[in-house]
Amino acid sequence: MQQYFSKQAQPAENTDFTLDAADSYHLFTVMRAQENEQVQVVFADKKLTLSAVNADLKSLRVLHTLERQIELPLDVTIAVGLPKSDKLEFITQKATELGAHEILAYPAEWSVTKLDAKKIVKKTERLNKIAKGAAEQSKRLMIPDVTILPSRKNLLTLFSQYDQVLVAYEESAKSGELAAFAQSLKTAEVGQKLLVIFGPEGGISPDEIVAFTAEGASLIGLGPRIMRAETAPLYVLSAVSFYQELLK
Amino acid sequence: MQQYFSKQAQPAENTDFTLDAADSYHLFTVMRAQENEQVQVVFADKKLTLSAVNADLKSLRVLHTLERQIELPLDVTIAVGLPKSDKLEFITQKATELGAHEILAYPAEWSVTKLDAKKIVKKTERLNKIAKGAAEQSKRLMIPDVTILPSRKNLLTLFSQYDQVLVAYEESAKSGELAAFAQSLKTAEVGQKLLVIFGPEGGISPDEIVAFTAEGASLIGLGPRIMRAETAPLYVLSAVSFYQELLK
Repeated sequence: MQQYFSKQAQPAENTDFTLDAADSYHLFTVMRAQENEQVQVVFADKKLTLSAVNADLKSLRVLHTLERQIELPLDVTIAVGLPKSDKLEFITQKATELGAHEILAYPAEWSVTKLDAKKIVKKTERLNKIAKGAAEQSKRLMIPDVTILPSRKNLLTLFSQYDQVLVAYEESAKSGELAAFAQSLKTAEVGQKLLVIFGPEGGISPDEIVAFTAEGASLIGLGPRIMRAETAPLYVLSAVSFYQELLK
Repeated sequence: MQQYFSKQAQPAENTDFTLDAADSYHLFTVMRAQENEQVQVVFADKKLTLSAVNADLKSLRVLHTLERQIELPLDVTIAVGLPKSDKLEFITQKATELGAHEILAYPAEWSVTKLDAKKIVKKTERLNKIAKGAAEQSKRLMIPDVTILPSRKNLLTLFSQYDQVLVAYEESAKSGELAAFAQSLKTAEVGQKLLVIFGPEGGISPDEIVAFTAEGASLIGLGPRIMRAETAPLYVLSAVSFYQELLK
């Protein structure tokens, strides 16, 4: 069943509504939806409904609310050092499937890719479209915001908004540090906000480690194998899901 | 530090040896290694050594053995329904980084991609090269074998080689089944062999579910969000690592 997001508040049952122009085009022109065909529509505040196509083939009506626990019990924001080529697109798609609450990219000291203000705007637009598509396909109740931060300082100023800030650090993994991430998940309570920071391909620089830990971040290792920059965020999100949704 | 695999048995300390032609070319011509430069070399039976380049810039000598626990405590084989385009290449790279012991692909009922014998040979060769590169980069002690099975029957006949056979089934996830995978990991003992089966983009057919479960496979759900075919294996491998290596 197709799923769409609407920014409006959830209408009452049997009330008619229309989707955004782009989603309407997708549903009626691309998918050729017929009268009474059912789709899931998520309204503002993560309100999920079963809705049906009206005879006019332009509007829909709300059939009823669906109560589903779809989102991760923790709000996990991932912040990745700006990676090369289309890896940020890849991370955005996969992290959205895996339940990320928000996705940030920051210009790390060892990021090879540099983006000027104009490119940031364009790329951000594309990334948010990818997040929307992935959120629809994975039947999320929200679309993660994707933001490219202009500087590392912007990332540091966000730390105070989170209950825990973790930094995935290859050197921690190499030195056999295996307990910190598990400990962090054990102490995290439902609804808490986690920020997990990852380096670009070259890793996180010593200066960045100093800056992050000075602001209260904890270093975590992700096991004994070296993961590429774009793989580590998927590991973390999978682990959070496994621990919080399957194991508990 | 670069890492290479050698098929020969580990030579004694201070014994000279040479790498395969392709690896020698990479080390001496591409990387321009100099005398006394150190590399990690994994010999047969997962024997990891620190080795050094000799003055001839052709051979190396073993300095000493390195004792490292790098491989997952469970042997996890993933079997994926043949997916579209280059997704098998993607899965091979990422599953190798995440510690897969072996990677199988099988022609699922709903696989869109069909490969004839000639294409299977060519693709298998490419996939094994990708696995080798990813194993080197992630500092594994082994290179996972990648095999494309000619039929689903081939997959079924392998079941008896494993301690547990699990099938990641979207419908299990949809019906809220969340405990089976965690239960399976709780009961798995170190050194056991797990086979985890995934469908192609279209999912696993009801006939396949019947065939798999008749041969003793258990169905598992991977949380409430719908993952793409290429994402689910990464979730499983990450969860195994988190549970076995970080949480325990």
